[in-house]
Amino acid sequence: MSGTTTQARPGGRSARVRASVHRAVHELLAEDSAEALTLPAVAGRAGVHPTTLYRRWGSVADLLSDVATSRFSGDIVVPDTGSLRGDLERWVTDVATDLADPDSLAIIRAAVGSGPEGGCACLTDRHAQLAAMLDRERARGGEVPEVSRAADALLGPLYYRAVFTAEPVEPGWAKDLVASLLR
Amino acid sequence: MSGTTTQARPGGRSARVRASVHRAVHELLAEDSAEALTLPAVAGRAGVHPTTLYRRWGSVADLLSDVATSRFSGDIVVPDTGSLRGDLERWVTDVATDLADPDSLAIIRAAVGSGPEGGCACLTDRHAQLAAMLDRERARGGEVPEVSRAADALLGPLYYRAVFTAEPVEPGWAKDLVASLLR
Repeated sequence: MSGTTTQARPGGRSARVRASVHRAVHELLAEDSAEALTLPAVAGRAGVHPTTLYRRWGSVADLLSDVATSRFSGDIVVPDTGSLRGDLERWVTDVATDLADPDSLAIIRAAVGSGPEGGCACLTDRHAQLAAMLDRERARGGEVPEVSRAADALLGPLYYRAVFTAEPVEPGWAKDLVASLLR
Repeated sequence: MSGTTTQARPGGRSARVRASVHRAVHELLAEDSAEALTLPAVAGRAGVHPTTLYRRWGSVADLLSDVATSRFSGDIVVPDTGSLRGDLERWVTDVATDLADPDSLAIIRAAVGSGPEGGCACLTDRHAQLAAMLDRERARGGEVPEVSRAADALLGPLYYRAVFTAEPVEPGWAKDLVASLLR
């Protein structure tokens, strides 16, 4: 993960390089050339010297981790509908919509195994969002499942379907997962 | 998927080539060199001419699909304990044990997206096993959930945890998934 925490002034050269490298990864994945996703290929597409990529990211895995973290952080606003059920239903709908986007899916599939200890960097924010909704309900005095159980029941089927099967990830089906969890 | 259905006499040259190529993929993945998993690299390790691999598998994705199908087919015997709950508990324990094996996990992660329509070839047999247990219970006159719902509730969390998180996939936790599904 070397370099992924580098702070750069917005608009500075470092930020511009990062933006064009991320754009190059998105483009190459969208072209279904995941097999050919190497640092030299990304460098060529981004118009950046390969040495810069090796120095800043070190490996394709680290670069994909950075791209996935960036792409899937802050992309979904945690809903605040007044009830846990309402919040979760809106949230799973947003997650399902995101997972139905081929470009999102290409990044997730490519980033599998690129996170800390082999996890996926694409999920850090999803767990934080889930915890935030459960915490809010608990503060209202409601009974809530543990975060890990909620993640198993909601994120499990959502990511399983999207990544491992050819079945559609539909909002109606996603809401049924909430009903199963809260029944 | 060209070539993956090639029938070869057991012990014939074709079968020997396939066995050594599969072994080379397992070795390279176990060495954590997924990034370098190319057909020439596999050919070198297997001691086979690269042309043979290109002709028989066409691409790394097709080769991984073949390896995953072979590795995850017939590896788990469908249990027959006399009750659906008993069957499912034993089965998820076996699946959890398999997913806790780093070598299995390396193949699954590498084979993500290599299946038909972007799914994972590692799961075809799991769905068939689940359907077999549900069918048997239905034949006994029991009420059973649909296969897709059972897959969401069991395979969803199992593969999600194993592939996307650094959390352990423990047999006790897996049995709780069965309890949630059948309650």
